[in-house]
Amino acid sequence: MNWKESVKQDVKRAKAASFSFSQLTRDQKDQFLQRLAVDLEKNTGIIVKENGKDVAKAKASGLSSALIDRLMLTDERIQKMAESLRNISLLADPVGEVIWEKTRPNGLVIQKVRVPIGVISIIYEARPDVTVEAACLCIKSGNCVILRGGKEARRSNLVLVSIMKESLAHSGMSPDGVAFIASGGRQAVKYLLKLRDDIDLVIPRGGYSLIDTVVKTSEIPVIKHYKGVCHTFVDRDADDEMALKVCLNAKVQRPATCNAMETLLVHAQIASSFLPKMAELFAKHNVEMRGCPRARTIVPDMKEAAEHDWGYEYLDLIIAIRVVDSVDDAIAHINQYGTKHSDAIITENRATAERFLRYVDSACVYHNTSTRFTDGGQFGFGAEIGISTDKIHARGPMALEELTSYKYIIHGNGQLRQ
Amino acid sequence: MNWKESVKQDVKRAKAASFSFSQLTRDQKDQFLQRLAVDLEKNTGIIVKENGKDVAKAKASGLSSALIDRLMLTDERIQKMAESLRNISLLADPVGEVIWEKTRPNGLVIQKVRVPIGVISIIYEARPDVTVEAACLCIKSGNCVILRGGKEARRSNLVLVSIMKESLAHSGMSPDGVAFIASGGRQAVKYLLKLRDDIDLVIPRGGYSLIDTVVKTSEIPVIKHYKGVCHTFVDRDADDEMALKVCLNAKVQRPATCNAMETLLVHAQIASSFLPKMAELFAKHNVEMRGCPRARTIVPDMKEAAEHDWGYEYLDLIIAIRVVDSVDDAIAHINQYGTKHSDAIITENRATAERFLRYVDSACVYHNTSTRFTDGGQFGFGAEIGISTDKIHARGPMALEELTSYKYIIHGNGQLRQ
Repeated sequence: MNWKESVKQDVKRAKAASFSFSQLTRDQKDQFLQRLAVDLEKNTGIIVKENGKDVAKAKASGLSSALIDRLMLTDERIQKMAESLRNISLLADPVGEVIWEKTRPNGLVIQKVRVPIGVISIIYEARPDVTVEAACLCIKSGNCVILRGGKEARRSNLVLVSIMKESLAHSGMSPDGVAFIASGGRQAVKYLLKLRDDIDLVIPRGGYSLIDTVVKTSEIPVIKHYKGVCHTFVDRDADDEMALKVCLNAKVQRPATCNAMETLLVHAQIASSFLPKMAELFAKHNVEMRGCPRARTIVPDMKEAAEHDWGYEYLDLIIAIRVVDSVDDAIAHINQYGTKHSDAIITENRATAERFLRYVDSACVYHNTSTRFTDGGQFGFGAEIGISTDKIHARGPMALEELTSYKYIIHGNGQLRQ
Repeated sequence: MNWKESVKQDVKRAKAASFSFSQLTRDQKDQFLQRLAVDLEKNTGIIVKENGKDVAKAKASGLSSALIDRLMLTDERIQKMAESLRNISLLADPVGEVIWEKTRPNGLVIQKVRVPIGVISIIYEARPDVTVEAACLCIKSGNCVILRGGKEARRSNLVLVSIMKESLAHSGMSPDGVAFIASGGRQAVKYLLKLRDDIDLVIPRGGYSLIDTVVKTSEIPVIKHYKGVCHTFVDRDADDEMALKVCLNAKVQRPATCNAMETLLVHAQIASSFLPKMAELFAKHNVEMRGCPRARTIVPDMKEAAEHDWGYEYLDLIIAIRVVDSVDDAIAHINQYGTKHSDAIITENRATAERFLRYVDSACVYHNTSTRFTDGGQFGFGAEIGISTDKIHARGPMALEELTSYKYIIHGNGQLRQ
């Protein structure tokens, strides 16, 4: 069977399975999650072994150590995957919830009820720990899932998916509910994205090239988990101490994450007092600074920022710094260069804060705290399948509710339209 | 200026205007709506005159009388447009509503707040009455709108849009908030659909060819208002009287609408008693019947249904009729041939009804009533911009809330991520 036929069959089978997945009870889904946690623990040896082959190949091909670290599965990481499944099993089931209800004057009772979306395809890059968690969030919310992971993690993903399929079968659920597209290269992704009759949603997680391909090719609705170019604006009315601490946290606490700060904007009226202290702190934490001309007048040993530094996602200990004349200039900069992800203002002036929070067109806007809080766990959702940088369907951290749609159920007793 | 440059500039201007539109108060928006209602009434003469040119051209080119009727604007229809704007002005403003709020253990206060989507493009076919209502629903929900109507209504649309722009200017709002793409033919639509940095959502309303082009071309999120192939299933436990009345209503009350019934499914156990009575009623209302072989055994003077009759949207006094052996066969037929729009079951058996309502994967599922109720007005939404046949973002009748997104606003006092 060629790859095209194989992709098509996997997708058709997932669609067929999605009708029964949509009707699973919470208990059935949770029992599967708990069983899978045990099965992952039992199979730690084989998972680590298969992953080792991926890692060896990645090392031989000269992949960076950061990427190899993300690829690697250890006993401890597998234990964490199992724990995460147990946590998902404790979350409420969103399916079946009545979101809205109304009795009309003619006696019709209209209920808006949460239902699964159907078949969701997750297209992502190297990290194999996404494989299990993403699939299980889809299943907990009653969906079937088509996974397409990066080729670097191929063997790791195949063994993880085969364990998931076995756990599904042992839990009386169809193994077709999880499929992994392993072959066909980029062409397989393009082919997948045309199967609009059988796939209901695509969630791409990755860099520009992946997102761009998906957006240009897909005939299926897409919710993008795109990069986070997050800004913090230190206003002239900021509390100095707080600003220093929050900016440091947003930049260095975990610089490789999408909610880390990439650009610091500083109000001109406090730049000469604030920037030297900030620069000293950044220097102490090995943060490379790239400043605009005005920032470099104040802190001369900063590198010069080029135009491409604005809106750049470093994911590293590097920061772009710009002095701006007003909150409106800060808002304009963010709406031009940002990625609608997470942006913060530090100010004691409530009116300035309100202006920033209203006009910055991002999923998460923060007042006096760190952009690092954009996270399903930190928001109390108990899980996260991604962070939407789109405005349709879901914005910001996405968890179980965001993996559902709804339908209207209308009960009558013979009403006719007049 | 060539059409491409002109489309690009219209869209850029709408994007720029969208920041101020998102901040309009309810009063500002409602005053504009009321002013526009008056302006339409005042300009009835010129609207009817321009529309007359469209109608004359349409007649000369041999457009069907049904389409010419949909194209025509009369004094009465313009009065109805004005009334509809006054009704929209009475609806609550969805923008700014706090949908969800939580204080986290670390003291962060997270609010999920309804915000406009931004710039919405409506791509539709002939009807010029859509122009004003769709644009005003977008504006009431704080959005800017790029309209692309059918070429048959070009002059009518241009005069309506120019009146809207004047009313916007007189209300202190930017006329850039409404744009109409009049030139460039099909190429303009394709070009528009690539402008993903400036347009946030596309709503196509029309037939298969339009929808297919949009879905294949768009790099912007799309919510489809696609056709309605609606079914009614008369179960073996149906109340005979009710089934006859509801089926007649669903088919003949206004057959040209998307929520009219196109296919009747009848349980085999009651087909021989029910179908002759139904056929007599249909015949009395000039409904042409096209039946499966089993239906034709019972009512021999039915035409024979071909495979393409299943899933066909007649929008006319024609119905396809199929005898099925069970509720599960009815569900399977609907999920295969339907368009996820509106489907009904007539039964006195609650368990059978529940099964149908759960398994039929459509936006609106009805028990013991007519599919004709799928309508924003009938649902009590006070308006309707379309009926989504998609599962992402919005399903079924779409009104003001469905034209919004949300953002998370987080207030802190210096919290850091650990």
